Amino acid sequence: MTIVPERTATPTDEEIFAAHRGGKLATGLTAPLQNARDLAVAYTPGVAEVSRAIAADAALAHHYTWAGRLVAVVSDGTAVLGLGDIGPRAALPVMEGKSALFKAFGGLDSIPLVLDTTDVDEIVETLVRLRPSFGAVNLEDVAAPRCFELERRLVEALDCPVMHDDQHGTAIVLLAALRGACAVQGREPGELRVVVSGAGAAGIACARILLAAGVSDVVVLDSRGILVPGRDGVVGEKAALARVTNPRGVGGTLADALTGADVFVGLSGARLPEEVLARMAPEGMVFALSNPDPEVHPAVAARHAAIVATGRSDFPNQINNVLAFPGVFRGALDAGARRITEAMKLAAADAILEVARDDLASDRIVPSPFDPRVAPAE
Amino acid sequence: MTIVPERTATPTDEEIFAAHRGGKLATGLTAPLQNARDLAVAYTPGVAEVSRAIAADAALAHHYTWAGRLVAVVSDGTAVLGLGDIGPRAALPVMEGKSALFKAFGGLDSIPLVLDTTDVDEIVETLVRLRPSFGAVNLEDVAAPRCFELERRLVEALDCPVMHDDQHGTAIVLLAALRGACAVQGREPGELRVVVSGAGAAGIACARILLAAGVSDVVVLDSRGILVPGRDGVVGEKAALARVTNPRGVGGTLADALTGADVFVGLSGARLPEEVLARMAPEGMVFALSNPDPEVHPAVAARHAAIVATGRSDFPNQINNVLAFPGVFRGALDAGARRITEAMKLAAADAILEVARDDLASDRIVPSPFDPRVAPAE
Repeated sequence: MTIVPERTATPTDEEIFAAHRGGKLATGLTAPLQNARDLAVAYTPGVAEVSRAIAADAALAHHYTWAGRLVAVVSDGTAVLGLGDIGPRAALPVMEGKSALFKAFGGLDSIPLVLDTTDVDEIVETLVRLRPSFGAVNLEDVAAPRCFELERRLVEALDCPVMHDDQHGTAIVLLAALRGACAVQGREPGELRVVVSGAGAAGIACARILLAAGVSDVVVLDSRGILVPGRDGVVGEKAALARVTNPRGVGGTLADALTGADVFVGLSGARLPEEVLARMAPEGMVFALSNPDPEVHPAVAARHAAIVATGRSDFPNQINNVLAFPGVFRGALDAGARRITEAMKLAAADAILEVARDDLASDRIVPSPFDPRVAPAE
Repeated sequence: MTIVPERTATPTDEEIFAAHRGGKLATGLTAPLQNARDLAVAYTPGVAEVSRAIAADAALAHHYTWAGRLVAVVSDGTAVLGLGDIGPRAALPVMEGKSALFKAFGGLDSIPLVLDTTDVDEIVETLVRLRPSFGAVNLEDVAAPRCFELERRLVEALDCPVMHDDQHGTAIVLLAALRGACAVQGREPGELRVVVSGAGAAGIACARILLAAGVSDVVVLDSRGILVPGRDGVVGEKAALARVTNPRGVGGTLADALTGADVFVGLSGARLPEEVLARMAPEGMVFALSNPDPEVHPAVAARHAAIVATGRSDFPNQINNVLAFPGVFRGALDAGARRITEAMKLAAADAILEVARDDLASDRIVPSPFDPRVAPAE
């Protein structure tokens, strides 16, 4: 497999800052307000009729306000891209970008809400108080392990779709890509040995969706090695995962885990040395998903693996959450769902794969994010 | 003065509900997201440069996010239009309308945040946590007397412009209109006897701005009569106002207050009987501002007063907050102001009057809300 960057011109700082001046989002009106009659319809006295109707039947708010199709992109700024805990103000450009993606790829309105607290109780309490203002919550860039508790608590507290995209968006697209790669190779996911390097939000969610999709041989590592029950540092979500993964009881390092493995999933940012990669079984698959620097350069990975994917837009096989979250939320809101279930996540991965199926190839295991068929399919 | 409705066709319920389906607001992108390069500028990896810059200098968030020009329209739904305490869900259409007005008349982005709590501490706490998400707070339709404490607490807690529009927006436009009426009649505000009927949010703010503008003879009434220190029910804001109004020490009812008065300001919703109105001095001014039903029909008021204004768009001299709040917030945000001061409110009233000055008449004491010169002037 030959890996060639799809383009080399990266945006300059000048271009980037110019595009961000004044922000990337704007609010607009769905109908003009140009004369007294427009005002009488959209504001007083007309609006009073709509308010009276909702006061009598709260369910009407879903239809007669924007909240029914509004996604709040919520972050405390503690795990922003690869930048870490940079706080809510610095996180806002990322959340604005995410809201823009909801609009561009899912046709959903979306507002970023960045929170000046990292306390789980306070974040839950804040969103419960704001609940009538939105229709769904996309949790974003919250550090592990707090993100697990926060998502669980929000799902319990709010009667609307809630999803931590860093976990489940990544997992959905990884599963779609793995299935696409299997289709190219004529293999079944259930027969693969998979190694997930990284036990943060995305790593844990990827391991879990693979298990749910029938992949039984999954080995997960954190920075100290393979997750094994009782190992030092294997607590909380990691301990729960250690109990249901690693069926062959492998111990040790990444080199131990990768020996004879079919699939590498990198979600840790830790470099994958070429000599370790060389231990994988033939016809392997490498998903080096850390951004902006993949665990291994795709050209190096291609020397040892048959299929290579990254998170980057400038190489083939981009594993991009934008393939998943706009369609998942759009589907949930259109259906009036109160939860995003595990079944909905698996179905979203299927839908992404179906869009790609007609022209699958080793350098096209997922559709392009700009394929207009993606979001409607989910 | 002859009062003729400007138009009679009011919107039908069908028209109103059709215009509200799916809500009145939408989010949009300030630049297209159509290819991988757009994505690399607005999202990863480009956005990381902007986040890094804001992490190093928080003040940059004002320039490189939408928060710098974003007004949060905040309500707990306790005093919505004339509908009262209908709750946050039913209040949302009104707040969406308000956000739409910010866009249409002030060119400002705005999001409605409706809160499922009426506790002042909790509302303040919620907005403090959300502070990095917006640039200013327009407080709306919060019941008195809680609204006074809430506004005061928010001004203290947030380092950004905060204004309860039901109080100050109304007061600013009333002052502009009173000055316009004085200009038409060749009188000075300081020589007028003014009666304010209603001691809720708007009534108290109107009385206070008139005092600040040099009107010394102001008599304020609540539902039990003229505010006099020590009277039953005259506590809190009412007591404070009683100490600085009513210099002639009048006691009793609206009929007592209006005897010989030059100006009636109605903000209570209570009917003003014609025989009481007839007690006013000649060449009087009637501001019957309750919506949708003025305290007295403008045609009746015109039998006894030289200048008549209402809050309605279908009669001349509409006293509409939209003349004030878009320009006040736009000016404050453009200037990077951390407070909306009393001086800014008086200046806004001046600016509204200046726009109207060239064509002032007894049936045109304020400009039309659709006069494009209004917001830029403030």
